[in-house]
Amino acid sequence: MTCHCGIDTHAHVVPENFPRYIGIDAPSDWPSMAPAHACHRSVMIAGKVYRTVSDKCWDAGRRLDDLATMGLDLQVISPMPELLSYWMKPRDAQQLLHFLNDQIAAMVAASSGRLAGFGAVPLQDPELAIRALEYAVQTLGLSGVEVGSNINGRPIGAPEFEPFFAACEAMGAAVFVHAIRPAGMERLIGPSALQQVLGYPGDVGLAAASVLTSNLIERHPDLRIAFSHGGGTLAMLLPRLQQGWGVFQALKEGITTAPREQARRLFYDTLVFDAPTLRHLVSVFGETQLMIGTDYPFNFHERQPVAAIDAAGFDSATRHRLLRGNAQRFLHLPVQEPA
Amino acid sequence: MTCHCGIDTHAHVVPENFPRYIGIDAPSDWPSMAPAHACHRSVMIAGKVYRTVSDKCWDAGRRLDDLATMGLDLQVISPMPELLSYWMKPRDAQQLLHFLNDQIAAMVAASSGRLAGFGAVPLQDPELAIRALEYAVQTLGLSGVEVGSNINGRPIGAPEFEPFFAACEAMGAAVFVHAIRPAGMERLIGPSALQQVLGYPGDVGLAAASVLTSNLIERHPDLRIAFSHGGGTLAMLLPRLQQGWGVFQALKEGITTAPREQARRLFYDTLVFDAPTLRHLVSVFGETQLMIGTDYPFNFHERQPVAAIDAAGFDSATRHRLLRGNAQRFLHLPVQEPA
Repeated sequence: MTCHCGIDTHAHVVPENFPRYIGIDAPSDWPSMAPAHACHRSVMIAGKVYRTVSDKCWDAGRRLDDLATMGLDLQVISPMPELLSYWMKPRDAQQLLHFLNDQIAAMVAASSGRLAGFGAVPLQDPELAIRALEYAVQTLGLSGVEVGSNINGRPIGAPEFEPFFAACEAMGAAVFVHAIRPAGMERLIGPSALQQVLGYPGDVGLAAASVLTSNLIERHPDLRIAFSHGGGTLAMLLPRLQQGWGVFQALKEGITTAPREQARRLFYDTLVFDAPTLRHLVSVFGETQLMIGTDYPFNFHERQPVAAIDAAGFDSATRHRLLRGNAQRFLHLPVQEPA
Repeated sequence: MTCHCGIDTHAHVVPENFPRYIGIDAPSDWPSMAPAHACHRSVMIAGKVYRTVSDKCWDAGRRLDDLATMGLDLQVISPMPELLSYWMKPRDAQQLLHFLNDQIAAMVAASSGRLAGFGAVPLQDPELAIRALEYAVQTLGLSGVEVGSNINGRPIGAPEFEPFFAACEAMGAAVFVHAIRPAGMERLIGPSALQQVLGYPGDVGLAAASVLTSNLIERHPDLRIAFSHGGGTLAMLLPRLQQGWGVFQALKEGITTAPREQARRLFYDTLVFDAPTLRHLVSVFGETQLMIGTDYPFNFHERQPVAAIDAAGFDSATRHRLLRGNAQRFLHLPVQEPA
């Protein structure tokens, strides 16, 4: 029997079609769709197949059927990260992301309350990103935004992004940080899937660390920001950062609050595929900071997110928090106490 | 009361002086020493202070006094990683490393059995590195070698290094992998100390992962190889690699044995500055695979390594393994059972 009570904060959308570029000089990496095998289409970028994806990426009906099977009653959908388009000219990216945000809002509107959405903004131009955020949150009613772990190599804690995060805080927009184009690719020995498997967690970990070392949460205490893949490698970086903060004068002067304490103000998803690791994360980050993430509907997704939490053997209050209570706080939904 | 029973596998040496380069065209980054404050000297590289270090780096007497205080009866000393000189011409690096290996052997010889040594080899030229390994292990009697997590950007699992590791296996030389010039530096926001604090663990994690994805231990089952800083971020990468191995056909075909199982054949030090994290590592990697590491005598070192293990509350058999039994196996010393 499946309990229909989980909230999934990490799931992705690819539209069925991409619009034609409107303008004179189309970017060479403007995406398009090509046919693939049954129920699948291929996202084409710069003339090559970037990824072949199933119709669950855009078909809300198929998605809602799966939600029930997965024990979820709400899923927050966000763009496939490669679509964030930070490497395009800002106005070109904005054209694509505007379309994507509209698509996401349409899926949310048709879902009878079972989907919510994170939009995307052209963070390579923080001022333009703020205007896109206003449209996504205030006009479309999306819950917040998905941002990459880095923007063309700069981590999200870099000072040029602070005005954008200040705007997220002011508008009450949740921020979901997803790995993208990770550092360390030249350190991988094996097939290209290792980018997702090994590269992503490291980049998310460094992104989260940059939020701690830049005091972003200290200066914006009402910012709600979550990190994909259980915060990536952050849990292994944090004790060393905490210790280094006590040893290196420059770190002590630069970081205003203990890194370990700051880390317990960030949110993380549960997408770690291992019960002992999940227990460790709850111990490190706090039972109030983790919430379901699945990476649905890509191949490499958690098919049984509720069972994955149950396998960790938490007490019922913690279980309820991880299933939905923490996500409700993160998303600013009404928090229900367990029955 | 201090128990003098620990074996420290992660401690560094800087010589009191560097030799002059012998030859016509000295490398611009050939190191030298400059005076600093009392009991300290500054390592100069390319005209700048690389690091100011204490005389404990070269003074065996001061080091042996500290060992007693730290509860250690044996410490394996290895070069300060920046001295590995992978970026020099191979013959130039070999000249410097030959000197360093001799210095380390001299410290070991004068220690009444309380020091052992890891040498260094010019891995940018694997054939030359094998000859340097022979000298270090077979002539000088060192216990093995320290190698960087990457060699000019290539992780240790890359195929060009396999002949070297095959030679280590054949000679019974232990391999200690230390972080060096890490990936992801452009992702750090804050002072330069973050290279050590946040960059190092990520690079060690990717180096260890490259050993798993390249099947190095499968092909060389008698290779004894250890990773600094608790394996860095590996513990957070491993569950995702294990899951990805079951999902991506290319990974399943490329990796011959479950990553989780392979990881339990590698060694790791305990240098994580946090008891819950240490417990997690013992659970992930096995109670037979961790051994003391301190990073002595640099500023950012573990001053009470025995207390750090005791804080984790292991049973007495596990405690004894972490204090010395695992290091004895790693170093091919006679393994003593606890009294």
